Amino acid sequence: MSSSDTVISIDAMGGDLGPAVVVAGMAMSAKANPEVRFIVHGDKDELSKHIEKRGIADRCEIRHTDDVVTMHEKPSHVMRHGKGTSMWSAIDAVRAGDATVCVSCGNTGALMAVAMIRLRKVPGVNRPAIACLWPSRNPSGFNVMLDVGADIRADQDDLLQYALMGLSYARNGFDLTRPRIGLLNVGTEEHKGRAELKVAHEMIEAAAEYNDFEYVGFIEGGDIPSDRVDVIVTDGFTGNVALKTAEGTANLISGRLREAFLYSLPSRFAALLAYPSLQRLKKRIDPRQANGGVFLGLNGTVVKSHGSADATGVSAAIKLAFQLAQSGFGEKLAARVASVTEAGQSEGPAPKAPTTAKGKPNT
Amino acid sequence: MSSSDTVISIDAMGGDLGPAVVVAGMAMSAKANPEVRFIVHGDKDELSKHIEKRGIADRCEIRHTDDVVTMHEKPSHVMRHGKGTSMWSAIDAVRAGDATVCVSCGNTGALMAVAMIRLRKVPGVNRPAIACLWPSRNPSGFNVMLDVGADIRADQDDLLQYALMGLSYARNGFDLTRPRIGLLNVGTEEHKGRAELKVAHEMIEAAAEYNDFEYVGFIEGGDIPSDRVDVIVTDGFTGNVALKTAEGTANLISGRLREAFLYSLPSRFAALLAYPSLQRLKKRIDPRQANGGVFLGLNGTVVKSHGSADATGVSAAIKLAFQLAQSGFGEKLAARVASVTEAGQSEGPAPKAPTTAKGKPNT
Repeated sequence: MSSSDTVISIDAMGGDLGPAVVVAGMAMSAKANPEVRFIVHGDKDELSKHIEKRGIADRCEIRHTDDVVTMHEKPSHVMRHGKGTSMWSAIDAVRAGDATVCVSCGNTGALMAVAMIRLRKVPGVNRPAIACLWPSRNPSGFNVMLDVGADIRADQDDLLQYALMGLSYARNGFDLTRPRIGLLNVGTEEHKGRAELKVAHEMIEAAAEYNDFEYVGFIEGGDIPSDRVDVIVTDGFTGNVALKTAEGTANLISGRLREAFLYSLPSRFAALLAYPSLQRLKKRIDPRQANGGVFLGLNGTVVKSHGSADATGVSAAIKLAFQLAQSGFGEKLAARVASVTEAGQSEGPAPKAPTTAKGKPNT
Repeated sequence: MSSSDTVISIDAMGGDLGPAVVVAGMAMSAKANPEVRFIVHGDKDELSKHIEKRGIADRCEIRHTDDVVTMHEKPSHVMRHGKGTSMWSAIDAVRAGDATVCVSCGNTGALMAVAMIRLRKVPGVNRPAIACLWPSRNPSGFNVMLDVGADIRADQDDLLQYALMGLSYARNGFDLTRPRIGLLNVGTEEHKGRAELKVAHEMIEAAAEYNDFEYVGFIEGGDIPSDRVDVIVTDGFTGNVALKTAEGTANLISGRLREAFLYSLPSRFAALLAYPSLQRLKKRIDPRQANGGVFLGLNGTVVKSHGSADATGVSAAIKLAFQLAQSGFGEKLAARVASVTEAGQSEGPAPKAPTTAKGKPNT
């Protein structure tokens, strides 16, 4: 193992499609990227078999665990009894510094709970967030939205922190020097929306200059896939509903597109001729390419891959994890949040006891 | 004018495309439906010209107004100074009983504000709601979602009322005898979501039997366009974001579909052959066919057409208004809400002073 290699910790057991698919995704990444290595967590016998088959044994270290967190286990239960699971072990490899980023296809709530207690929150962060990539009209093809489901509520201070964490993510994940940040609301006029949104609006606007980002103000749901913003800030309830609504809409439309082409013999013939165009479309809106929700605000980076991700999806999540590991993203985000917590946040209304009281920085 | 005719009150001035397009939509409806008549509100000279041109003068009564509510006027301003506008006059025709339903393409917030003060809330309703039609996999092609933006908040009592109002709407607008109602949340498990959602979950479940609907429980964003539900209940903030996000997603995908077909000469040729299929798709996901948000919970029905609706869109909104007028929807909704306010709502947690204290039923 070369000293320049980047090590990713993989929870191989949690996905809907099982460890074979996770290992297949690892193999795709290993082939594409000679600098990536893995610590793989799960059933040793089963993992060895798949890893041998894919010919990536020299790139992997297996850490055996007996248990698996299922998709329907409650986070509170996993927090108390999850110690022997592949998910816990995968997070602990980041905690111990053996790996830089953890990737899991497992139960989102449980993964966040385990990550919270094992990695702990970055000083200054009250609520961690999950950021997702959203297909958009921007040159990169994606926008970042957070929170999409770490927590069902967020007050004005949380929304400011989300803006700063999203800023750090957009800089390090997308090489944007001056990202544009928008706050999701039901209208773009300043008098619209909930009370905490109006306060957050002013706080984020005030933070823009010092932190060198462009604040575009309130945006609406229709702006999420636009080229007006790079980072969309919202609470985890709204963000989660928006994300799943968009997925549902995309599924409805592709289903109807299929029906339209299956309608008659001439339309089936047209579909054959249109095949390259439709494949081009499919590739451009392929959700697997945007696979990977990133947990932000913890001492260590965790990438949550979709539970039903196939090998391409897992490989996309690993690629994202690698980029973030290489950029030193975790440390930069912590520094960004800390600078604002110390400098400006106490000017905001309703200041709260800083969460730094709970512990010193441990990165 | 025959006694069986249904009279629709039209605010002809509020839309983005002006009165010519509104009158064109009226003409489409008049041609398709011999039983519909209009009271049209706005500038008399301009309206006469368009109405003459379309040959529907015998189906229209014009009520002249000098003013128009613009898209950016604040609702509070319109409430105080809106008396001489076409919007105010259009609502007042319903208040006076001259028309059964009002249709407007104007400023949503202002329209709701004017409707609230002129028509007043149905006894037992705390917050009126806007219900929209959502393209879905159901046989009718649509689901109903509410609230999509009348109010940015809703507590458990409001959510129960939304369920009952949506029930009434689905029965009268879609001829569904036993609609399936779902409550929008970030997961389907009972322990998920905000506190008021968990309480509303139990209240709606308890109301299902007595009101003869099927409660399917919590649903997620991905279920909105599905065939699992007929009515989706949520607060106006979440509903508005979900609606606009779906529109944005649909726009993104159709833009990319166009790009995929414009890509090369062969793909352009394929597009020509695929044209009938693509037109079939376009028709099935045409948002103009689902045009018309309905204000629920007021003494009188108001249909809000999209501000940028073209003649086809306006005509779809008029068709919906006609159906609701014919079914006697307003009275049925009031009776539905009243029965539960009297019978069961006090069993729910945190009962509030009934809003009926403000005034007797005035329908």
